Amino acid sequence: MKGIQTIAFDADDTLWVNEPYFREVENKFCGLLEDYLPHHTVEQELFKTEMQNLSLYGYGVKAFMLAMIETILRVTENAANPVLIAKVLEYGKEQLNKDIELLDGVKDVLEALKGKYRLVVATKGDLLDQERKLNKSGLAHYFHHIEIMSDKQEKDYRKLLRHLDCPPEGFLMIGNSIKSDILPVLAIGGHAIHIPYHTVWAHEVVEGEVKDERFYSFENITAILPKLLS
Amino acid sequence: MKGIQTIAFDADDTLWVNEPYFREVENKFCGLLEDYLPHHTVEQELFKTEMQNLSLYGYGVKAFMLAMIETILRVTENAANPVLIAKVLEYGKEQLNKDIELLDGVKDVLEALKGKYRLVVATKGDLLDQERKLNKSGLAHYFHHIEIMSDKQEKDYRKLLRHLDCPPEGFLMIGNSIKSDILPVLAIGGHAIHIPYHTVWAHEVVEGEVKDERFYSFENITAILPKLLS
Repeated sequence: MKGIQTIAFDADDTLWVNEPYFREVENKFCGLLEDYLPHHTVEQELFKTEMQNLSLYGYGVKAFMLAMIETILRVTENAANPVLIAKVLEYGKEQLNKDIELLDGVKDVLEALKGKYRLVVATKGDLLDQERKLNKSGLAHYFHHIEIMSDKQEKDYRKLLRHLDCPPEGFLMIGNSIKSDILPVLAIGGHAIHIPYHTVWAHEVVEGEVKDERFYSFENITAILPKLLS
Repeated sequence: MKGIQTIAFDADDTLWVNEPYFREVENKFCGLLEDYLPHHTVEQELFKTEMQNLSLYGYGVKAFMLAMIETILRVTENAANPVLIAKVLEYGKEQLNKDIELLDGVKDVLEALKGKYRLVVATKGDLLDQERKLNKSGLAHYFHHIEIMSDKQEKDYRKLLRHLDCPPEGFLMIGNSIKSDILPVLAIGGHAIHIPYHTVWAHEVVEGEVKDERFYSFENITAILPKLLS
């Protein structure tokens, strides 16, 4: 890959485990409402609440907690036992306090690329939570810059590139979400590598195959090295 | 003031009204619990919850909403009518959707300083919410850089100055909070101007007088101009 100066890594489910923790909490949450609705219907109701509030709350655990609480109130028509809401607060706090579990190969890849490229993190979500995860991960020192973004649309990447003073053709984004890490970056003229992760939030799912000469896909993060070190 | 290159403005209660909106919601919230506790005791309980969760939730409206919900559950020993919790969600969403009310003189001051200094915003709080307020304010174009910080301690300002490539002696911070905008900036060798605002969150209150040759205090933002344009 010629001409790449800056490599940006998505964080959640690219550097470390994230989505499975949301699914774990969602699963327990559906259990709380089993007297009212079947599991998959609660899931749908929760997703509906999340989508309705996305532009107001943004991404992250606090938004997820508020969406669970709102779903309880709606589904039960304000007749829930308040203990269910106390449970949501408990689940959310547990999730915020989770340890960081790095994905296989991440540390070796960063070690191998260090000094050869300008490495940055480009992640969306809650500011404090993403900072905390990065600090806990022990990976912060590999990165020249950490960008926590409120969203990952074309305009957000354009802003990031201006900020990094990097032309699109010198920029490579690596991440697990076709919707957030790949398509907007290709659209503004950057390069993108997709590393799929087994669990994807419904909001991030896109249909169809990506075809672009600046797009690559690898099964795991370690597999990007031959391409980037040659 | 000689040698200043970069002027950073706090946003909430320096550029626009913020704290009164929190106090307004808090007031309605205390009303929700009047069957359980007197107004001032609810206020104390809410503040206690906020402080207990500050390191986990950070600053901003979503954290405030979660603190109100937790306070309801604790004060009522999980026996509250869930309608009270629905009310909290309603108040929080209203607050997030509030219009921006610029403080007197702000626009004229930015207009007058534009092109003479590098102007930045340095605000703490929720990423998406602060971005939204800045966009709604119509002030974004005055600023070279917007820094939304998870906290405003000395280490956070040191990081900001590295990022701006600005020596502390060339940096001036303007804000309403002695604790967050003034003391840490003076401590790392920067200049600071305090512009008091009539409403201050208990968490931001500090005792004692600031004495430092790099510290100034003015009654309103317009009063800084003679100092900065001479």
